[in-house]
Formats: sequence, C-alpha cells, structure tokens
Amino acid sequence: MQGQNQQQAYDRGITIFSPDGRLYQVEYAREAVKRGTASIGVRTNDGVVLAVDKRIRSPLMERDSVEKIHKADDHIGIASAGHVADARQLIDFARRRTQINELRYGEPIAVETLTKEVTDYIQQYTQVGGARPFGVALIIAGIADGEPKLYETDPSGTPYEWKALAVGSDRGDIREYLEDHYDEDADLDGGIELALDALASVNDGELTPEGIGMATIGAETETFHQLTEDEKTEYLESFDLLASDDSDDEDTEE
Amino acid sequence: MQGQNQQQAYDRGITIFSPDGRLYQVEYAREAVKRGTASIGVRTNDGVVLAVDKRIRSPLMERDSVEKIHKADDHIGIASAGHVADARQLIDFARRRTQINELRYGEPIAVETLTKEVTDYIQQYTQVGGARPFGVALIIAGIADGEPKLYETDPSGTPYEWKALAVGSDRGDIREYLEDHYDEDADLDGGIELALDALASVNDGELTPEGIGMATIGAETETFHQLTEDEKTEYLESFDLLASDDSDDEDTEE
Amino acid sequence: MQGQNQQQAYDRGITIFSPDGRLYQVEYAREAVKRGTASIGVRTNDGVVLAVDKRIRSPLMERDSVEKIHKADDHIGIASAGHVADARQLIDFARRRTQINELRYGEPIAVETLTKEVTDYIQQYTQVGGARPFGVALIIAGIADGEPKLYETDPSGTPYEWKALAVGSDRGDIREYLEDHYDEDADLDGGIELALDALASVNDGELTPEGIGMATIGAETETFHQLTEDEKTEYLESFDLLASDDSDDEDTEE
Amino acid sequence: MQGQNQQQAYDRGITIFSPDGRLYQVEYAREAVKRGTASIGVRTNDGVVLAVDKRIRSPLMERDSVEKIHKADDHIGIASAGHVADARQLIDFARRRTQINELRYGEPIAVETLTKEVTDYIQQYTQVGGARPFGVALIIAGIADGEPKLYETDPSGTPYEWKALAVGSDRGDIREYLEDHYDEDADLDGGIELALDALASVNDGELTPEGIGMATIGAETETFHQLTEDEKTEYLESFDLLASDDSDDEDTEE
Amino acid sequence: MQGQNQQQAYDRGITIFSPDGRLYQVEYAREAVKRGTASIGVRTNDGVVLAVDKRIRSPLMERDSVEKIHKADDHIGIASAGHVADARQLIDFARRRTQINELRYGEPIAVETLTKEVTDYIQQYTQVGGARPFGVALIIAGIADGEPKLYETDPSGTPYEWKALAVGSDRGDIREYLEDHYDEDADLDGGIELALDALASVNDGELTPEGIGMATIGAETETFHQLTEDEKTEYLESFDLLASDDSDDEDTEE
Amino acid sequence: MQGQNQQQAYDRGITIFSPDGRLYQVEYAREAVKRGTASIGVRTNDGVVLAVDKRIRSPLMERDSVEKIHKADDHIGIASAGHVADARQLIDFARRRTQINELRYGEPIAVETLTKEVTDYIQQYTQVGGARPFGVALIIAGIADGEPKLYETDPSGTPYEWKALAVGSDRGDIREYLEDHYDEDADLDGGIELALDALASVNDGELTPEGIGMATIGAETETFHQLTEDEKTEYLESFDLLASDDSDDEDTEE
Amino acid sequence: MQGQNQQQAYDRGITIFSPDGRLYQVEYAREAVKRGTASIGVRTNDGVVLAVDKRIRSPLMERDSVEKIHKADDHIGIASAGHVADARQLIDFARRRTQINELRYGEPIAVETLTKEVTDYIQQYTQVGGARPFGVALIIAGIADGEPKLYETDPSGTPYEWKALAVGSDRGDIREYLEDHYDEDADLDGGIELALDALASVNDGELTPEGIGMATIGAETETFHQLTEDEKTEYLESFDLLASDDSDDEDTEE
Repeated sequence: MQGQNQQQAYDRGITIFSPDGRLYQVEYAREAVKRGTASIGVRTNDGVVLAVDKRIRSPLMERDSVEKIHKADDHIGIASAGHVADARQLIDFARRRTQINELRYGEPIAVETLTKEVTDYIQQYTQVGGARPFGVALIIAGIADGEPKLYETDPSGTPYEWKALAVGSDRGDIREYLEDHYDEDADLDGGIELALDALASVNDGELTPEGIGMATIGAETETFHQLTEDEKTEYLESFDLLASDDSDDEDTEE
Repeated sequence: MQGQNQQQAYDRGITIFSPDGRLYQVEYAREAVKRGTASIGVRTNDGVVLAVDKRIRSPLMERDSVEKIHKADDHIGIASAGHVADARQLIDFARRRTQINELRYGEPIAVETLTKEVTDYIQQYTQVGGARPFGVALIIAGIADGEPKLYETDPSGTPYEWKALAVGSDRGDIREYLEDHYDEDADLDGGIELALDALASVNDGELTPEGIGMATIGAETETFHQLTEDEKTEYLESFDLLASDDSDDEDTEE
Repeated sequence: MQGQNQQQAYDRGITIFSPDGRLYQVEYAREAVKRGTASIGVRTNDGVVLAVDKRIRSPLMERDSVEKIHKADDHIGIASAGHVADARQLIDFARRRTQINELRYGEPIAVETLTKEVTDYIQQYTQVGGARPFGVALIIAGIADGEPKLYETDPSGTPYEWKALAVGSDRGDIREYLEDHYDEDADLDGGIELALDALASVNDGELTPEGIGMATIGAETETFHQLTEDEKTEYLESFDLLASDDSDDEDTEE
Repeated sequence: MQGQNQQQAYDRGITIFSPDGRLYQVEYAREAVKRGTASIGVRTNDGVVLAVDKRIRSPLMERDSVEKIHKADDHIGIASAGHVADARQLIDFARRRTQINELRYGEPIAVETLTKEVTDYIQQYTQVGGARPFGVALIIAGIADGEPKLYETDPSGTPYEWKALAVGSDRGDIREYLEDHYDEDADLDGGIELALDALASVNDGELTPEGIGMATIGAETETFHQLTEDEKTEYLESFDLLASDDSDDEDTEE
Repeated sequence: MQGQNQQQAYDRGITIFSPDGRLYQVEYAREAVKRGTASIGVRTNDGVVLAVDKRIRSPLMERDSVEKIHKADDHIGIASAGHVADARQLIDFARRRTQINELRYGEPIAVETLTKEVTDYIQQYTQVGGARPFGVALIIAGIADGEPKLYETDPSGTPYEWKALAVGSDRGDIREYLEDHYDEDADLDGGIELALDALASVNDGELTPEGIGMATIGAETETFHQLTEDEKTEYLESFDLLASDDSDDEDTEE
Repeated sequence: MQGQNQQQAYDRGITIFSPDGRLYQVEYAREAVKRGTASIGVRTNDGVVLAVDKRIRSPLMERDSVEKIHKADDHIGIASAGHVADARQLIDFARRRTQINELRYGEPIAVETLTKEVTDYIQQYTQVGGARPFGVALIIAGIADGEPKLYETDPSGTPYEWKALAVGSDRGDIREYLEDHYDEDADLDGGIELALDALASVNDGELTPEGIGMATIGAETETFHQLTEDEKTEYLESFDLLASDDSDDEDTEE
Repeated sequence: MQGQNQQQAYDRGITIFSPDGRLYQVEYAREAVKRGTASIGVRTNDGVVLAVDKRIRSPLMERDSVEKIHKADDHIGIASAGHVADARQLIDFARRRTQINELRYGEPIAVETLTKEVTDYIQQYTQVGGARPFGVALIIAGIADGEPKLYETDPSGTPYEWKALAVGSDRGDIREYLEDHYDEDADLDGGIELALDALASVNDGELTPEGIGMATIGAETETFHQLTEDEKTEYLESFDLLASDDSDDEDTEE
C-alpha cells in the first residue's frame, strides 16, 4: 500500500523524477508500446527484415490501413508498435529529416543519423513540460555503406542497435525466441524465416498472409521492398506456417 | 475501489499516460462520441454511402440545422458523430486543407491525404497540453482515382480504412449488423439498402425520411450528392423501412 | 456519494472530458443560462419575433438598461439569456463580424454565417485552456434572401435552427407551450401573440409592457424593429395579457 | 456540510462555473464591495448627485485622501465602493478612455459608452485566467444630451442604469430607503436631500460634513462639482442631519 | 477548526478573493510589514519628519547599511517597513518615476503623483497572477507647492494621506501615542520631538542616536536632510530620551 | 501538529506569503546556505579578508576545484556559502555587471553598487513565479575610494554591510567568536588572524593550509590577492593553528 | 511516517527547496545516475583514462550502440552514467560549445571552460520551472596546456575536479578502491590498470573486452583514442582480469 501510494505521487503532471530516480511517465509510455501488436526486426548479412502483426478489429476494416511498416527513404524502412497516432508523428518527423538531409547534403541520410535525430526529438518530450512522452517504439532498418543496420527508439529517447529485436506485445517471448535461434551467418531468406517463426511462436505456430506485414531492405539493392500477399503466402508455405483461415483476428486495442 | 481510485489519478489535467499505458482523456473523448447519434458509412464498388441518424430534440427544431453530413469537396463527404461543436471545427479544418491543396497543386486532394491531415491535427490535441482532445469521430468518404474510399478518424488521431462502419451510439450493434450483411459485390443501391437496414436495426426496424440524413459519392461521377426527402422516402419504401410517423424523436443529448 | 465524488473530479480546472464523455464546465455554463430570465424567439412566414422577460431587481432600476434584445445589423436581432456580461462580449463579437463582412464583401452578412462564426468563437472557449466557457445562450433572428431565420447558440458552441424556441429560466415549460401552440401558417402578428402567450404562461398569465422587451424583423422590410411601450401595451391588451400593475418584479439574479 | 464542501470545490483557481452555474470568484468580489463603506447615487430631473461615506480609521488620517468620488471628465463623476486599489485602476482606465474619445472624435464621451467600456474591461477579468476579478463597484454619473444619467458597474462586468442606488456596506437598507422616498419630480436639491437622508438612515440619523463626500453634475451646466465643507455643512444643517461631533469614526476595513 | 480550514483554502496560489471578499495574500503581506521594525512620519506646518528604528542583529553589522530612509528626490524622502528586499524594488521604482518626470516635464514630480504611481505599481502585483504582493509599506514625505505632505502606501496598493503615522512593528501602540499627542500647530522641531517620543514610547522610553534614522524635509528649503549622529544626539538629549548605551539591540527579523 | 500542517500549506509552489508574513521558500533557501561549509569575511583598516572552509569529500578530489573564493574585479573578491551551482550563477552575474560598468563608465564598479545589483537580481527570484530563490549567500569584499568594504547578500535579496561576518554552517558559533574578538584597530594581518581563529574555533582549533581558502584586498593596493599554500601555512604556523595532517576531511554535502 | 510525508511535500512540481534546504528533484536525478552502469575516470601524469561498464540487456543488442564514451573534441573525451537520452543532450550541447569556441577564437576549448559551460546549462534546469533536471553525470577528461584534466558534472550543475572518480552504480565501492590504490606517479598504463582493476573489483574480479569501453587522451598527443577490442583484450590479459566468457551480462535498466 505504502509503496503504491508513493508511486502515485510521482507519475502525474509533467515528467519528473521519482525518489528512486525513475521517470514514471516514460515507463507508462513503455506500457503503451506493450499494448500495441508486435513488430520484429532481423538483421542479416545481406539485408534487413521487418515483420509486423497486422491483426484487425473487424473483418470490415481494411488491413492495408493498419500501417505498421513505413518507407522513410529508398534505403530505410520503419516498423512501429504502440500508440498509432503517435507513431505517425514520428514517421512524419523522420521523413522530413530524410528530405532535409537530401536537400542539404545531396545524399541520403545515414540510418544511425536518422535514428539519433528521432531519439533527440523524443527526449525533448520527456524533459520539457507541457506535453506527454510519445507512446510508441520504432524499429528503424536500413543500409549504410552497404552494411545492414537495425535500430530501436524507445519512449525515453534512447537509441539501441540490434541484430534482431521485437517491440510491442509479447516482446519478451519473441525476444527469447530470437536469442535462441539467431544465426549470425543467415542470409536474407534466413532472416525472413526467423522473423516469421518468431512471430508465429506467439500465434499458435501459424500466420496468415493478410495478418502480417513484411518488408526487406537488401544490402546490395539498398531498396525498401514491401512484400506482396503472394510473396508472403509463398514464404509462409515454404516455412510451413500458413494458417488455414484468418478467423483468429481478435478485437485488439491498438 | 482501489482500482477506481487509481484510475481517477490519471484522467485529470493534461492528457498523460496511466500506469498501464492508456490515455484516459482520449478514452473519455471516445465516450463523448458514443453519446452522439449514430452515423454509418458503406463502401461499394461503384460508390460510397453515408447515412446518419438525425433525431431532434423538439418538433420545433429544424432538422436541416442538425448537420451531420458535410460536403468537404466535390468528391468528398464527411459524416460525424459526437460533440457537434467539435465536429464543426474539424470539418472547417478539412475544408481549409481541401482548398489549400487545390490552390497549391491545382488538383483535388486525395481522400487518404485529407484523412491523414485531419488525424495529425487531432493527435496534436492529445499530446500537447493546454487543450482537450476532440470529442468527435468522422467518417470521411470519397473517390480516389475512380476508387471508392471510406475512412474513420477517432479521437486519438488514428486513421482507419473500412469497407463499412458505424460511429456514435449503438456502434457495436450496428457494426455487428454490417459485418453480417456486408456484400463485397453490392452496387451503390445495395450499399444504401445495407446502410438503412443497419440504421433501422437499432430503431425498431423503421425510419422516417426526415429522421435520417443520407449522401452518396458515385465512383463514376465523383460527385457528392445529398439525398432529397423524396429520394429518401422512395428508398425507405422500397426497402420496407418507412415508419408511419416521426413520433419517435427523443430528447437526445447531442 | 460515490457518483458525486466522481463528478467533482472532472469539473474543475480547464474544460476536460469526464469518464462518460461529458464536459462539465459546459454543462455548468448551461446552468448559468437557466439562471437568467427567459427569452423567446418565434419564426413566422413573414418575419421573426423576439420577446424577453425584463424583470428588474428594484423599481429604481431603469428597465431599458436591462439589455436583452440587441440589433446586430439592420436585418438581424439577437436576444440573450444568462450571464449578462458574457452576452455583451458575444454581441460585440457579432457586431464586429457584421461590420467586417460589410466591408469585405459589400453586402450584409447571412444570418446563418453570423451564427456559425459566433458558435466557432464560443467553441474555442470550451477546448483551449486559460478561460471559462461563455455562460450565455443567444437567439439570433434575421432575414436571409427574404426568408425569416431563427438560430440558437448554446454554451458548447453548437448552432441550432428553430421554428420557435425559448432559452433561460422556465425554458422547459415555455418550449412545451410553444410546441403545443406553434402554427406553421401564422403571420407576424400571430407570432407576436404566440411569443407573448408563451411568456405569460409562466407569469400567471399576464405581463406588463415595461416588464418585457420585444422586437420584430419583417421578411419584406428586412428591418429590425424594437417595439415601443405603446405598441407592447396595444398587443398585450389585444391578447388580454395586460397585467394591472408591475408589482410582481422579483429579485432575480441576472 | 456536503453543500459547503461542494462550494469549496468551485471557488479556487481561475474563475470557473459551479454546477449550478455560478461564478464564485465574482460573487466573492461582490463581498469585497460590501466590505467598503457605502456610496450613493441619485438622479433628478436637473442633475445627478453622488454621496459617499468617508469614515476614516484614525483622526490623523487626511479625509481628503480617502478618494471615493472622482472626476472622470467635465461632465462625468464616478463614486466607488470596495477594494480601493482596484477602484483606482478602473478610474484610471475610465479617464484614459475619456481622453481617447476626446482625441479621436473631438467630443466628450457619452456616459453610457464610458460605462460599457468599463464593464467590458471588467468582464475580461472574470473569464480569462491569470488574474482575479475587480473587487469594486462604481457609480458612474453624468449628463448626456442634457439628460442626467446614472449607471452602476458590478464585479461581473454588468452595466445597470438606475434612478437611485447604493453600493457598499448597508447597501440593502439604503436601497430600501431610496425606494421608499424617491421622487421622480425632485430637483437637484431634492436629490441631495434624499442622498443625505439615505446615508444618515444607516448612521443613526446624523452626519458630519467631513465624514461624507459629495458631488453634483447639473443638467444645464454639465459640470462636475465637488461640494466644499461649507456647502456640505449648510445642506446637513438645512436637512437637520448635522452631527454634533465626528467621534463616531470607526476602524473600518476599506 | 472549520473556519481555519476554510481560510487555508483561499490563501494559496495567485491572489484571489475569499468567500467574505478578502485577499489573504495581501493581508499576509501586511503581516510581513508588521515583522519589520517601526517607521514613523510626522507632518508639521513647516516640514515633514521621518524617524525609523534601526536596530541591528549584531554589533558587527554596519548600522548605515540598514537603509530604512531613502531620498527619492531633492524634495521627497521615503521611509519603509517590512521586507527589505521588496522595499528596495519600490524605492528604485519611485526613483525612476522621479527621473522620468524630471526629463519629461522639466519639473520635480508632485508627492501625491509619485505616491499614486507607486500604489498603482503595487496593485498590479495583487491582481495579476505569477507574482506575490510586495511585503512592504512606505511612508512618502515631501513638499508640494510649499505644503508639507505625508503619504502611506500599503501592500494592497491603496494610498493614504496622514498627519502622522507609523508602520511596522508596534504600529498600533505608536499610532495611539501619535493620536494622543499630535499638535496641529507644532513646528518642525515639535514634529521631531513627537516622532522621537512616539518611537521611545515602545522602547522603554529611551533611544540611542545610532539606533534610529531620521530625516526632515523643510517646507521652505524643500530639501531632504538626513540627520547626523550629532544632530540626533542633540535632539535625544534635549528631549531627555538618550539611552546610556546601545546594549538593547536585539536579534530582529527584518 | 496543527502548526506543522499549516506551515506545509505555504511553502510549496511559487514563493508566497504565509499568514504570519513569512516567505518560506526564502527561509528554506537560507537552510540551503547553512548546509554549505562556512565562509568568513573580516574588514580591517587597511584591507579586507576572506577565509573559507574547503573541506572535500574525497582525497581524490582536487581542492582547487572547490571554488568558494572568486575574483569579481581587480578590487573586489566574493566568497560564497550554500548551493554551489547557484553561487556560480551569481558570480557570473556579478562579473558581467562589473564588465558592463567598466565599459559604460570607464571606471571600476563601486562595491556597494555591485552588491545592490546582485541583491536586486536575487529579489526577482523571490517575487516572480516560475523559478526558485537562489540557495546561496555571498560575501562581497572590496575597496571603495580607499575604504575597505564588506557586504553580505542573503537569499531574500537583502544587502547588509558588516565589519566581520560568517555565512554557512556553524554561522552562529563563528559570529559569536567574531563579535567577542573583533578589534576595530586591527591591521590586515590582525584580520587574517581573527578570520583563521574564528574558523579554527569550530574545527577543533586547528586547520590545514589545503583545507582552507583565503584572499585579501589591501586598501592601498586595491588588488585582490589569493593566498598561496605557503602563505597560508606560514600564517597558520604563526598563529599556532596548523594541524598535523588533513585526515579530518569529512564527507560534507556541498 | 511523518518524515516521509513531509518529504513527499517537497519533491513534486518544479524544483523547490525543502524546509531543510534540499532540492529533492536534484537528489532524485542523482538516483537516476546511480541506476546507470558505472563509469570511471583516472588522471595520470601523462594522460587521462576513461573506462565504462557496457553491460547489455541481450546478446542480440550491439554493444557498440551502448554509447557511454564520447569524443567531444580532439583533446576531450566524455564518459556518462545515468539516463542515456539525457546524456545525449548534454554531449550534443558540449559538442556545439566546442565548435562555437573553435569558430569564435580559432582555438580548441579549454577542458575547464567546457565543463563550466555544461554545468551552467545543467543548473538552469534545476532553478527555472517547466522542465526536470538532467538525470545524468558526466566525466569530462582532456588535456589543457599539456596537463591532463579530469572533471565531473553532477545533476545539480556543480563542477568538480578529480584525480580519479567513479559515477553510476557501485560508485561508493569503486571510489573506495580508487582511493586505496591511486598512485600520483603512475603513467598512463598504470592509470589503465587502476581503472580496470577498480571496475573489476565490483564485477567478481574479471571483465570481458566487449563488456567494457575504454578511451585515453595522452598528454603529449592531446588526442582522444578509443581502445580497440584487441587493445582491451591485451590489457585485460596483462592485468589478469580477462573473463572466460561474457555470460554475466545482466538485464540492467539503463
């Protein structure tokens, strides 16, 4: 009880420190991320993979309108998890930075540079009053000097670089799966398989092509490619993950 | 009790996260939407249909002044549910964006573009302090490159694309009806019938022409058309939904 | 008790949503309207009628200084109920808009346009922090293209169009009277009779010429006309509503 | 108890509505007015009279420094009751408006115009946050087109026109006296008598020349005239109101 | 208890009215004045006298650094009581106004004009949020057209004119002494005697030249003169008020 | 209990008055000063002495980085006690004022002028909202027209002039020592002895050269001189205050 | 209990003083620093050493993305501990100051100057409202005029100079180790050994090259050098600190 009361005292109003040095509003924003469906990123030697859960609330909703994978630049893709409207703000910010870099320096922005500009932007919302933190985590994937790169931005504004990661619901279980099965030597197809296996691992072992979103950025092509329904179906079949029907859509709060 | 007290702590003042990652002010704004009478959108292959409940508080009130369907552009119509004064602000914003697009690019705005500019505008009111969220949901319907399009904006600032949807009171029951009876191959008249049937399903199976508002945007004409009393009467008669009198108007809080 | 406590939590500070989607400050502003004496508007085929209760607190107070009917333009009159000082702000705003329209477009403002500019102005005070809502309702009456028009603005910033309406104290009883006796085919004199009958219905059936204010805007003349004491006396006599003396003035809080 | 607690909830912070539509800060500002000593205004056919209670806290205080009657323009005088420092702000505002009118239009400001500019200024302090209302009521007296005029401004920003009125402490008793003895046909001397009688009625029936302030604005001269000690003595003697000594000064909180 | 709780509710945050029309922050600022050592002003026919208690906290503190009498202009002196740092702000403001008047009009500022500019400045801090009131009272003394003048400014921003007054600790006792012994016909030396007698009356009947500050402004010379130690000693001796030593300095909170 | 609760009510948020006229935030800032190690100033006929306690938290910390004596100008030195980061802001402010004075008037700033500009700056932080008071006291020492001068600035923004003073921890005991041993006729060496004796009196009678900071400004040279380790050792030895080792460093919170 | 309640009263909202003169938000920010993994700085005669704990949360996270050592200029390196996103803001600020100095004066910034500009920046966030303090401590290391320099900035904005220090978790134990083993005569390799020994002392006596970050700035080269994996391995081996595997990574909250 005492502990609970004490906590309540530090999580209202502007983002301030609790006696043990925590920023509760930032931690609650992390909870908002967990309320979103999962997104996964996997880095391989010849490219990066983004895979997202696109479960919808009603069969009448257009799956394509559930935007969880975004093209930020020719060579950069972003997957998100959490508060959708917040994600759109960060994606817009990322795209503007991409264009400004292009205009100013005549060359595409580096993946790491973009990631850090986004996290600096996020941090401002955790220190200065008058606004709440962003309730969203991004996976920023791209190619830099021929090297596949995979970053995460969290609601505190901290950038992390990963070989493979998951954000959103079931984050813990998926990460465990990724840690157990990650192969440093895998190629892009291997990365796609790992991402789908990991996503299926928290979905009774099967997925539907419509129920997921998927994109790759090849190290050689340096080009963002969103997979078609056919491509997704083919991969799911070849990995023996294809569900018989999509009746498993649930009413998720995203 | 404990749970209730805890909730109270996170829903006052500016919009901030609760410990479980929710934005209560946004959720309460959704309740404001549910307090409004229902609005329905149905997409068909050759056009989009908007149908709204126009119940009034007194027979002396002019039904036409209950504006729930608005023309945003020649090819875009918007229906609303929720806090009426808030809806007017968003409609005005949408119209300004429409005109600016026309002036800047010399062509009509795309339905999706307009939807996203509206939702970005809504999102600002959920993150930055000094104002409350908008207590209204919009159904934005239009034609893009000959294709009928149907979007929803909710108080969080998230855009959704739908085949058919309902917002406002009885949203759950109407959506269930739409899911059960939606026909991918229906034409515009079929869409009108579905919309009216769905609306009647929560009104004892009958409607009056004055008690409803209705508009269509044909895929071919790309023109917003608000139905006349005669047209509405004709449809209601042909679908056997015409009520004998309009004595069912209730004192609703809109 | 619980309910009451919960309500208290949502009605302080800036205007925010309660858990059931209500804006308490706006609802309390509506209570401020009810604390004002009644104002009535009646639309007929050849003009609009405004009638107001001008009860005063002391026989030494000048009745003419109780301004409840205002000329906004040659063809538009406004009656108010509620917080008098707030009403004056909105009337001033309306007059400025009227003049700006005249200057900009060289023609008088449309009644509906004026009403919506006023309601948009009111809405701002219900969404953006740092100020309270306006505690006043207006009846805006005028002629547009030869057509009599009658609008209401409420503290939420919603515009309504009416055939006949009442705002302020006894609003419910007067509206009921209006609904029972409204005649679509009445002429202006019929409208005056209805307005006076309705007002008398909550004043023991009789009125004094000094105790009321009255104005008409004829469809043909398109001219705001405030009735003289003699005209009011004549009407009251002809409708058998003339009170013997004005001893019924009470100490009302306006 | 419950009622008291509920009230407490709505009277702090910025000026907002209570559930029953009241603005407590404005009502408390009215209490501040009642804490000030009384001021009286009487309108007659040939001029207006202002009379004020000038009780002081110590015989060492200069009575003339208790400014309760102010000349706003040649033809306008203002008496105040309530928070003295606030009164000074409003008097200064009134004088600036008077000068601006003179400069802009080359003619003296109308009494009613001045009153409304003052009340509009007062209203702003009751709606917009960041300041408290003015704790003062003014009696604005003057001549307009040869007609004596008498107005009141209250802390809500409402203007009232009176034949005779009192503000400040004992307001109720003095008003009753005024209502009982007001004579529509009185001349300026009659007005002076009524004002002094009314003031004496709450002072054991007698007054001292130093204990009161008095001014007149004649309809013909249109000139503000502050009465000298001799003039006041003469009037008090002639009306049999002259006190034997001024030992009744009390320690009033003004 | 109830009363105490109720009071607490109205004295925090910005300066607002309590239900009985009081401004608690202003009243508490008056308490801050009472915490300061006493300052006295006495007006005579041929000049004004300022006398202040300069008790210090330690024999090592320089008495001259306890500034309680300030020269505002050649013909105006100001004594203060209360929060010392606040007093310095007001003195600075007064000096700036004095210089501006000199520059603008080429003549010294009138004492009353200066007093009112200071009180208007003080009033702003009691009405507009974001700052607390000034915790200081000033005695402004000077010569205007050959006439000695003596004013007080209190924390509410009200100006008072006095024949003789005291502010600060023991204000009540000293005022009583002044009222009992004030002589309208006294000359400047008589005023000095009264001021010293009054100050001694609350100091066991004796004073030290270092323990007091003293200044005069003669009606003829119109020149502010701060008394030297010798002059003070001479006066104290002649009035039989000279203390044997200054061992009575106490640790006062100024 | 009651008293404690009452106190709590007045010491949060912006700096406001308590019912007994106190500014709690300012008083708490004074407590912050007491948490700092002691600083001492002594004025003699031929110069001023500043001596400070430089205890450090760890033998690995560089003593020279504990800046408690600062040169503000050639002829002015400042010692501080309290919140170190706040002290740095005030020292920076003082140095800027010093330079501005030099630029504007072509001559060094007077010690008293500088002191008052600093205290005016401090006062602003105690009256205007949006910031807390400075938690630091300064001793400003210098030569003006050949005269040694010694001032104190406290967190309220009050300037004091002293012959000798102490600020920071053990302030009371050191002051008592200074009062008992101050000699008006001492020369600079005498002042140094008094300062060191006083500091040693609260440190078991002995000091280390590294554990203290020391500076003098000679009346003739008008030059700020910070004493070297050798000079300090020599003085400590000659006054028999030299500690055998510096093992007494404690973990002080500065 | 009482103590705890009292504390709670002073640590919310903007940074204000508690009754005992403490700034709780600053102290809680210090707790945030302790939540970060440890960083160590050691100064030797021929250079400065920075060593940091780079433990990661998952083997899939890229260690290099855990940036705890930053190059601020050719001759200045910065290590951080605490809230990572906050650290990035301060590093960015430091780099901008470095560049501005270069541009303005054509020479590299002095280490002490940079440190003080950073601490002044930090202090602002502890005094002015509308933002929280920075939850991070920096170790700023560099060469000034050939002299190795080592500074700390803490969340209060206080600069400290050290011979050797630790910030972050286990700060106390590491500092104790440093105090016991610091050698004034050590060369750079000796400094590296001390830093690694100290870090190992709180890690069961062994470290992995990937688990730590390390940089040196040589006094002669004046060049920031980040050690490679090979260099780190070599040092760890030579000091007998090399762990067999990196299985000890824990899930730390950084």
